[in-house]
Amino acid sequence: MATTKTGAPLDRGTLDTLLRRRLFYTPSFELYGGVSGLYDYGPPGCSLQANIVDTWRKHFVLEEDMLEVDCTTLTPHEVLKTSGHVDKFADWMCKDPKTGEIFRADHIIEEILEARLKGDREARGETIVEEEVTDKKRKKKVKDIKAIKLHDGVIQEYEGILAKIDSYNGEELGKLIVDYGITSPTTGNLLEPPVSFNLMFQTSIGPSANLPGYLRPETAQGQFLSFNKLYEFNNLRMPFASASIGKSFRNEISPRSGLLRVREFLMAEIEHFVDPLDKKHVRFPEVADNVSLRLLPCAIQELGKTAIVEKTIGEAVKEGMVDNETLGYFLARIQLFLKELGVDQEKIRFRQHMPNEMAHYATDCWDAELLTSYGWIECVGCADRSAYDLTVHSRKTGEQLVVRETLEPPKVWEEWDMDVDKKWLGPKFRKDARKIEEAVAGISQEERERLSAVQKAGGKVVVEVESLGSVELEKVTITKNKKSINVREYTPNVIEPSFGIGRIFYSLIEHIYWSRPGDEARGVLSFPPKIAPTKILIVPLSSHLDFAPIVTALSAKIRRAGIPNKVDNSSATIGKRYARNDELGTPFGVTVDFQSLKDGTITLRERDGMKQIRGAQDEVIEVVRGILDGDTTFGDAVTRFGEFQGQELDE
Amino acid sequence: MATTKTGAPLDRGTLDTLLRRRLFYTPSFELYGGVSGLYDYGPPGCSLQANIVDTWRKHFVLEEDMLEVDCTTLTPHEVLKTSGHVDKFADWMCKDPKTGEIFRADHIIEEILEARLKGDREARGETIVEEEVTDKKRKKKVKDIKAIKLHDGVIQEYEGILAKIDSYNGEELGKLIVDYGITSPTTGNLLEPPVSFNLMFQTSIGPSANLPGYLRPETAQGQFLSFNKLYEFNNLRMPFASASIGKSFRNEISPRSGLLRVREFLMAEIEHFVDPLDKKHVRFPEVADNVSLRLLPCAIQELGKTAIVEKTIGEAVKEGMVDNETLGYFLARIQLFLKELGVDQEKIRFRQHMPNEMAHYATDCWDAELLTSYGWIECVGCADRSAYDLTVHSRKTGEQLVVRETLEPPKVWEEWDMDVDKKWLGPKFRKDARKIEEAVAGISQEERERLSAVQKAGGKVVVEVESLGSVELEKVTITKNKKSINVREYTPNVIEPSFGIGRIFYSLIEHIYWSRPGDEARGVLSFPPKIAPTKILIVPLSSHLDFAPIVTALSAKIRRAGIPNKVDNSSATIGKRYARNDELGTPFGVTVDFQSLKDGTITLRERDGMKQIRGAQDEVIEVVRGILDGDTTFGDAVTRFGEFQGQELDE
Repeated sequence: MATTKTGAPLDRGTLDTLLRRRLFYTPSFELYGGVSGLYDYGPPGCSLQANIVDTWRKHFVLEEDMLEVDCTTLTPHEVLKTSGHVDKFADWMCKDPKTGEIFRADHIIEEILEARLKGDREARGETIVEEEVTDKKRKKKVKDIKAIKLHDGVIQEYEGILAKIDSYNGEELGKLIVDYGITSPTTGNLLEPPVSFNLMFQTSIGPSANLPGYLRPETAQGQFLSFNKLYEFNNLRMPFASASIGKSFRNEISPRSGLLRVREFLMAEIEHFVDPLDKKHVRFPEVADNVSLRLLPCAIQELGKTAIVEKTIGEAVKEGMVDNETLGYFLARIQLFLKELGVDQEKIRFRQHMPNEMAHYATDCWDAELLTSYGWIECVGCADRSAYDLTVHSRKTGEQLVVRETLEPPKVWEEWDMDVDKKWLGPKFRKDARKIEEAVAGISQEERERLSAVQKAGGKVVVEVESLGSVELEKVTITKNKKSINVREYTPNVIEPSFGIGRIFYSLIEHIYWSRPGDEARGVLSFPPKIAPTKILIVPLSSHLDFAPIVTALSAKIRRAGIPNKVDNSSATIGKRYARNDELGTPFGVTVDFQSLKDGTITLRERDGMKQIRGAQDEVIEVVRGILDGDTTFGDAVTRFGEFQGQELDE
Repeated sequence: MATTKTGAPLDRGTLDTLLRRRLFYTPSFELYGGVSGLYDYGPPGCSLQANIVDTWRKHFVLEEDMLEVDCTTLTPHEVLKTSGHVDKFADWMCKDPKTGEIFRADHIIEEILEARLKGDREARGETIVEEEVTDKKRKKKVKDIKAIKLHDGVIQEYEGILAKIDSYNGEELGKLIVDYGITSPTTGNLLEPPVSFNLMFQTSIGPSANLPGYLRPETAQGQFLSFNKLYEFNNLRMPFASASIGKSFRNEISPRSGLLRVREFLMAEIEHFVDPLDKKHVRFPEVADNVSLRLLPCAIQELGKTAIVEKTIGEAVKEGMVDNETLGYFLARIQLFLKELGVDQEKIRFRQHMPNEMAHYATDCWDAELLTSYGWIECVGCADRSAYDLTVHSRKTGEQLVVRETLEPPKVWEEWDMDVDKKWLGPKFRKDARKIEEAVAGISQEERERLSAVQKAGGKVVVEVESLGSVELEKVTITKNKKSINVREYTPNVIEPSFGIGRIFYSLIEHIYWSRPGDEARGVLSFPPKIAPTKILIVPLSSHLDFAPIVTALSAKIRRAGIPNKVDNSSATIGKRYARNDELGTPFGVTVDFQSLKDGTITLRERDGMKQIRGAQDEVIEVVRGILDGDTTFGDAVTRFGEFQGQELDE
């Protein structure tokens, strides 16, 4: 069961209504009937999103001196053909041949089997919890559950299928549909066999229609293609990371679950380029013992369990659960980032990908998942993609995407060289001379050493040559020479932390949402002050004209102090205005009352505890500034100013 | 002739090379041969863009409490059909029938006629300035100019055509191509007649291909469609503004001129909703006398002139040159915004649209143009779009997009009512009764007053009814009654300031670019500190290992003070490192030298004047912080600390 910040059961319907009413986000193009999978962010959502992005930029890009780039969303066909997206970035869909309705094949099988299992439990008289917390993130299409008991063997089969529903290919999904009689839940019609549907939005670049392109499905490709430029910009120093924040697009077959599965979304991605032979991270010691993670490694999942192991990232890397330091460093940094946003620490887990879940080239991959009313939601992926991306683009374009490392000291070794006298070889063997040269080139170091000894002992140097048989090399010099290389060339590996901003946005809201005891209809969004869309609501206690100038001046003053604020001079009661404000998650309320007109003082109210203090304008602004900067707390301010209890109104 | 910040001739080739080398922006997908009209922003470009956007958000959104929204770029067909984009957002293109090469019709006519005029001037022995500053923004396709003298009449014809090249429709362009023998400059082939090419990128939303859509060509439509929600969010108060920052897309036929004409670009748009009967602005007095603009009104353009009139916005509105206060207020705010970015005040003009340039519904429109080596470039448009957008969407969807204003006091007036007794009318006239009622309803107030007087005087009340002739109303009551309305309903007008961030980005760079005298190859980008991509470059004077810890700690300390900084610990000479830094536009350099190891002091060097001061780390950070906040200047710091002349190295 999903819970609110205070541990009460979370009623998603009430929260959804709040988020729409307060314009956090709303379906796009509602006036035209809406388009599923597209959402607009209203003023508080837009500001919250900007604050999440800003925190991300400071936490990762500035803190680690990453090279941020902004590449285009329009991407020509060839690039995404090379990356594998044209061939593989697809889902399987089934059509109802009579109505044309389209279903995502794995989803429809999953839902129907789950509905049957539920019907079975009902038939057996078990209690059904309506909104179960499962890993399933979708709105149910199967509305009416029939209470029919299943054979125990069938139940096992169903559960087996559901456990690996993500791993079937199209043919297998088609077979399941036939074998288990999966039909359209809307019409009961048989479904057509699954066909592959590419999830990229296609378009055409330029007027001549000969340059097909797509909207990027991720921001990564632009970063890979910029590798050489960025490496040079970084003064040829390794390792380094690029980063990018931008929109990506996926043409989902049937988007559901609000912001969790949409067709257009904001991503923030990091590509950390690293030496494949040295995945240590210079700042790993800063987190090794200080950051504990709740981990769900694949070894536990393979046992069919979901028990979480809590340990420091230092331990996890040391014992090999997490593949390397750099990957581990980023997992720890992701955890710290989510904490800074206000995510509930008990509702985070890092789930390792199962070997069959990962791309063949990936070394290790962990998802940061957040627990919501839709189940555990993948919000950040963190994969070691090895050298795959740079290698495929390099092979396709013929441009080297490599690092050349000067070896100090140079790598030095000894080698036997065999030098056949060409003046002897040519005239004697003519067109067969090349065959002999090739044979000599193929002689191993050990054999050369043996032949040298033979020669020194006065023996003949005889080699076997294909189609010529044994040949005596009458004029050959065999010597041992020193060799050295002072440049090592390698294709960097890529560690990729990839953030779905919309998913984090939504999960965070579920984590910090609660209602005041005794007033369940009144929601509160307890964003940390730094993350909150607006910081201060200014509330004049009277609509008297005398209040207008002081309110305007105060708002401007707070704004000049760099603190976003809003004035609510509506005619609603102060209680209603505070309630509206709770729903917007504004951490502080400032009232301008009759006392303010006399002595310029104002009150400051903290959203969660609803306590107030009273002080001069500059003092109050100073307090809020200090809290936003993390230098002080509201509790400190109450100690300093004393609690103000002047106007207890109709809260 | 375009000039640098210091007034020297601007060599665009040198600047372009600098911008690419330093990764301000580079062509996208270069590894795959590039796609014209698409550019990636590298680290300094990305940061500069973010700073411009951040300044914009503070200057407009926060300062004016605008309602920022983030709407999707994917837009269904129907919305853009209603807005007029599907039918009208197009350019005319001509094809070379043999090679398939495509030209934008107006551009190719323009270029060929200009080339002929140039050839004529050459034939007449006039000097040709190669890089003229004209209003033409494009790379020339016509490479070789033939020195052929033209008749004086032909010259006049050509000049006439060029003056109104933007106003021809497809048929007219086709006629010009035939009449003036315009052929492909590449092959000399005759061109096919112009066909319309819609500039929107088309795609298909969802799996069934029955929901065609486009990438938005502007951010405005999402804002218009949100009007009702935003109006309610704003507590039903008018006027208010929405704002949006996001990517838009235009499938240009042949994009040229770098960032000035691209296929994917960042826009920032404001939609200010205002009462059509009251376009005053409450903050207009703040700018009226304080902000002077360089204006090019349409009256001057109609005379074929480009002389600039400088006057305060207060005067311009008062004399009706600018249509209304709200429009004027935004022009002034745009000017202040551009000034804050560092745009050269002498290279801004506000050009009013000619009546035939504006859409039929627009009341007034001004472009903020910036002077660059490509001529005067439209960087911000500011139009009064009247009620057009809300009206068309409302008409199409049947949803009202209006404001209901309570009238206090209610509007009260007196009116003559005429009430014909139905019991008399029906039986007497039967099916003609309605005709009589209609005739009575159409009687004017003046006539009713007259008839009332007639009746009072004992006369007959006679009305003319179509096809019945004169009819006496035997039973009619004529009375004067009080009427009142207390709600006024209106469709708001929209004032739309619309910013092309990429164009501002590029024009700004041209304005703040210069070279050190005597070292023309060494460019400097003098961004104001607040706008500069990075604020401080930390330069250790030695690569000795002793320097590493102090440099790392210093960088972290400066970062914690909220100041983005970079370390350049490359092995290049300090002169080379400063030169690189000048090109990146970093305003401050901090050196860590042997003295730093002893006493912890560091030096601070200012980019433009190259003067240095020396101080304790905290003091130096404090100075930079003060300059970024606008509280102090580097000059003040030199006065306070004295100029440091210790290490004059190989600059």
